Amino acid sequence: MNIAVIGIGAWGTALARLLDQPQHQITLWSHDPRLVESIQNTGRNDDYLPGIDLPPALRFTSDICQATQNAHLIIAAVASQYFRATMAALHQYNGIVVSVTKGIEHESGLPMSGVLRQTMPRASIAALSGPTLAMEVARGVPTAIVAASSDPTTATTVQQVFHRAEFRVYTSSDILGVELGGALKNVIAVAAGVCDGLGFGDNSKAALVTRGLAEMRRLGVACGAQPETFSGLSGLGDLTVTCFSRLSRNRGFGERLGRGETADQIVTSMKSVAEGVPTSRSAQQLARRHQVAAPVIDEVFALVHQKKNVRDAVRDVLSRDSKPED
Amino acid sequence: MNIAVIGIGAWGTALARLLDQPQHQITLWSHDPRLVESIQNTGRNDDYLPGIDLPPALRFTSDICQATQNAHLIIAAVASQYFRATMAALHQYNGIVVSVTKGIEHESGLPMSGVLRQTMPRASIAALSGPTLAMEVARGVPTAIVAASSDPTTATTVQQVFHRAEFRVYTSSDILGVELGGALKNVIAVAAGVCDGLGFGDNSKAALVTRGLAEMRRLGVACGAQPETFSGLSGLGDLTVTCFSRLSRNRGFGERLGRGETADQIVTSMKSVAEGVPTSRSAQQLARRHQVAAPVIDEVFALVHQKKNVRDAVRDVLSRDSKPED
Repeated sequence: MNIAVIGIGAWGTALARLLDQPQHQITLWSHDPRLVESIQNTGRNDDYLPGIDLPPALRFTSDICQATQNAHLIIAAVASQYFRATMAALHQYNGIVVSVTKGIEHESGLPMSGVLRQTMPRASIAALSGPTLAMEVARGVPTAIVAASSDPTTATTVQQVFHRAEFRVYTSSDILGVELGGALKNVIAVAAGVCDGLGFGDNSKAALVTRGLAEMRRLGVACGAQPETFSGLSGLGDLTVTCFSRLSRNRGFGERLGRGETADQIVTSMKSVAEGVPTSRSAQQLARRHQVAAPVIDEVFALVHQKKNVRDAVRDVLSRDSKPED
Repeated sequence: MNIAVIGIGAWGTALARLLDQPQHQITLWSHDPRLVESIQNTGRNDDYLPGIDLPPALRFTSDICQATQNAHLIIAAVASQYFRATMAALHQYNGIVVSVTKGIEHESGLPMSGVLRQTMPRASIAALSGPTLAMEVARGVPTAIVAASSDPTTATTVQQVFHRAEFRVYTSSDILGVELGGALKNVIAVAAGVCDGLGFGDNSKAALVTRGLAEMRRLGVACGAQPETFSGLSGLGDLTVTCFSRLSRNRGFGERLGRGETADQIVTSMKSVAEGVPTSRSAQQLARRHQVAAPVIDEVFALVHQKKNVRDAVRDVLSRDSKPED
């Protein structure tokens, strides 16, 4: 099978490495010719997946037409803010496209599959999402993930392409729920990081994860997703790994906020985007549009985009009335 | 209010400390007069809550009648295997008794409230459960918990007694679900520890937490609990803190199993019980009785009680067929 990976970040690279087998021809594309050249010279993607050797059969290019011609399957692994513009170049493609990007487009409120539906109307669309730190997948530790598509045949094909003993792929028909889980969890993870930065400990974080997942589910259901999807790998699973792992960028972003840095300072210093930053804006907008109460998302939005003081945000969350759990 | 705390482990001690206020008279009981004397001499419970000063107003005794005479509220904080025998001494009590012990009695399959219903038939029964590492509560970090009772007035009274700005108490009428969440999560936490001991990383643990919570919910619903309770603080919340925190005894037990020690060796070396050890037996029995599939609980039971090899257990879990997520 000819496979094209659009975007050579940590995750695109780790997935290409996972798929490397004699029966596949895999080409990775980046907009940045210097990155392509560096990887071709070193056999590694040290900017994004340091210390991991890449299989010699992988090909690299900065020509998107060359990457995708004759592709049977395209993996869309571009950061959400460049997603629409990049994928629009592949308007004519009619094979399978799998989004592995977690985000919600601002203004449109669409997850990446919604953007693909507009930019690649002839393609069969799937999303792959779950608790999958790229570095751990690159190291081969056991991992489980969900392949979602509204078309069962597409979901099953994606499952078959990716499934390994140490990389277990489950299927789902609720692509919207799977994508919203993966996107919204990054916002909750920023709040979890704030708890860490303030030295609050694991009780606080567990409470936040619980209330945060309820908030994700409430908002997701208002958007049309299935409630039970948020209890699965792409909801609860991804939320827990992102809130508790030292390796999570979004949790790390929140931790620095909690220690007193400003959002602008942190954004400027980071090599790659913490998706929770743009997603807090689009999620807050989405909650308002659907009139869903989203106190954690609201506070993260205010912290990141409105310069709200961290201690004020925590006080506002803790001073809410006690009530039955719902 | 006169409050008696039965059991001076880490959790009973931390709760007594939390409740210390001028309007309460709090007496703690231990079966062990040496522990009582040591605490009276040092003003600390260094065996279970090291480094934490206890308020001078707390009283300690090894006479259970003295501890509970005139009590308006009793906190039952005895390890599950001594729970029935200890609480049976208080057969005549007719005030509120709050279980804070997480476990399932072997043979009877009852959570602690069920044991209380038999041993203290005149009492109003509640359970308090959630993601609450005792040491963090003692340090005053923000914590949230659930007060559950089938009687709404009892739940609300318990909520009012315990609620603080930094210790938020929610209520629930599903006492069975709240207790089963708190008990079963310790079994999943042993499995999470095994992942850590084998060096598997956070992706594996997130997948285990997700599948484990589904298993807890399935078994709980078969026993008569409400499914949504397992998405709350006493289910998901407690599960995540126990699976991810360095402070969790049950996770730590599993980590040592994963590194190659035997269950017997670990049990012998631990000062206090890892509740996941007895609970894996009663949970496995409960699942069999209700004919519920419980693959994680089955593997933990086999590891802890049947000397199953760790790598065989992992292979058996990973070699299950790929399928839709449910």
